[in-house]
Amino acid sequence: MLTLYYAPNACSRASHITLAKAGADYTARRVNFAQSEQRTPEYLKLNPKGRVPVLVTPQGVLTETPAILLYIAQTFSGAGLAPLADAFALAKMNSFLSFMCSTVHVNHAHRVRGNRWADDESALESMKKKVPQTMGDAFALIENEYFQGPWVMGDRFTVCDPYLFTIAGWLGGDGVDIARFPKVNEHFQRMAADPVVAKVVATEQAPA
Amino acid sequence: MLTLYYAPNACSRASHITLAKAGADYTARRVNFAQSEQRTPEYLKLNPKGRVPVLVTPQGVLTETPAILLYIAQTFSGAGLAPLADAFALAKMNSFLSFMCSTVHVNHAHRVRGNRWADDESALESMKKKVPQTMGDAFALIENEYFQGPWVMGDRFTVCDPYLFTIAGWLGGDGVDIARFPKVNEHFQRMAADPVVAKVVATEQAPA
Repeated sequence: MLTLYYAPNACSRASHITLAKAGADYTARRVNFAQSEQRTPEYLKLNPKGRVPVLVTPQGVLTETPAILLYIAQTFSGAGLAPLADAFALAKMNSFLSFMCSTVHVNHAHRVRGNRWADDESALESMKKKVPQTMGDAFALIENEYFQGPWVMGDRFTVCDPYLFTIAGWLGGDGVDIARFPKVNEHFQRMAADPVVAKVVATEQAPA
Repeated sequence: MLTLYYAPNACSRASHITLAKAGADYTARRVNFAQSEQRTPEYLKLNPKGRVPVLVTPQGVLTETPAILLYIAQTFSGAGLAPLADAFALAKMNSFLSFMCSTVHVNHAHRVRGNRWADDESALESMKKKVPQTMGDAFALIENEYFQGPWVMGDRFTVCDPYLFTIAGWLGGDGVDIARFPKVNEHFQRMAADPVVAKVVATEQAPA
């Protein structure tokens, strides 16, 4: 049994969807950010970083989206969510996951979590102002370089797809029109219409 | 044959050391950042992100440190640089790689590449001011949570070790005394004294 700690519409949604797509036996537990539940001693014992996602496995606790996604793909290898035996294809996949966590998510965080990197109000405002540009640039690179179609990695649905879907869902709030990126946009609509994905989204959006 | 594009003392050093440790047949090509070589049309064709590292393989081009490190570990599996068959141990390793690229490297970049996220000078100054705190916090977490000893992942040297060594080498410039973290510090000294590591560092420091 696996337990995922998530916050609605946070990057943990990628792990949430991937667990559902893998057909895993899991429990999803919501972390209430509005009540700073991620800062309670109990939660910090689980994850000293005070963030989501956290995946509790029979062997121990895992954090960081790329690590959790690959763990799910490897543990439920029958679901075919990653090209595990092909070092180059797997590296291409990992390159995408790494770009998402180290560049795209970080760009977004400068709108909503700027105090990670600066304290004064004018700096936070300056950071927010640049987010439409940095997110737009990052998604142009995804559209033109990473995205193979119809899925991120080509013919096969992989763990990259829930991650792209999750972060593409932030574009509107970041001041970027997803329609600028036709392939990403079509992928987003297709993912949203998938019954497994829709059920996860509905679970996250349900009242606590 | 593999070709690594690196810049001296950049995060590409992790891939550089890992190639040497794997016993790979590789060529290391220096990218001259002072002359903006990473912005030339030739280089941008190789890596539209205009960054290092880039690893050119027989199958194609790879970017992003975590992806390159795992590719080397999987391609030269005899060197035992990653617990490839153990999904949980591999996820722990990937969690460390992901934390390094998405949190630690990003913290550091706010001192030297703040213009990725803000344009005005006062915001850049404000970002720089917080780097000693964010890098100190990140390394406290590495020291107390991630680092198992004597290597990052415990008894076995893995791709995590060159990555930690590389970024720990930035601490002085970031205004953080590495001696605050005894385990990380001892690891850094031990890595620096390793003949294979020392040779890579000497190659990177040699006049162009």
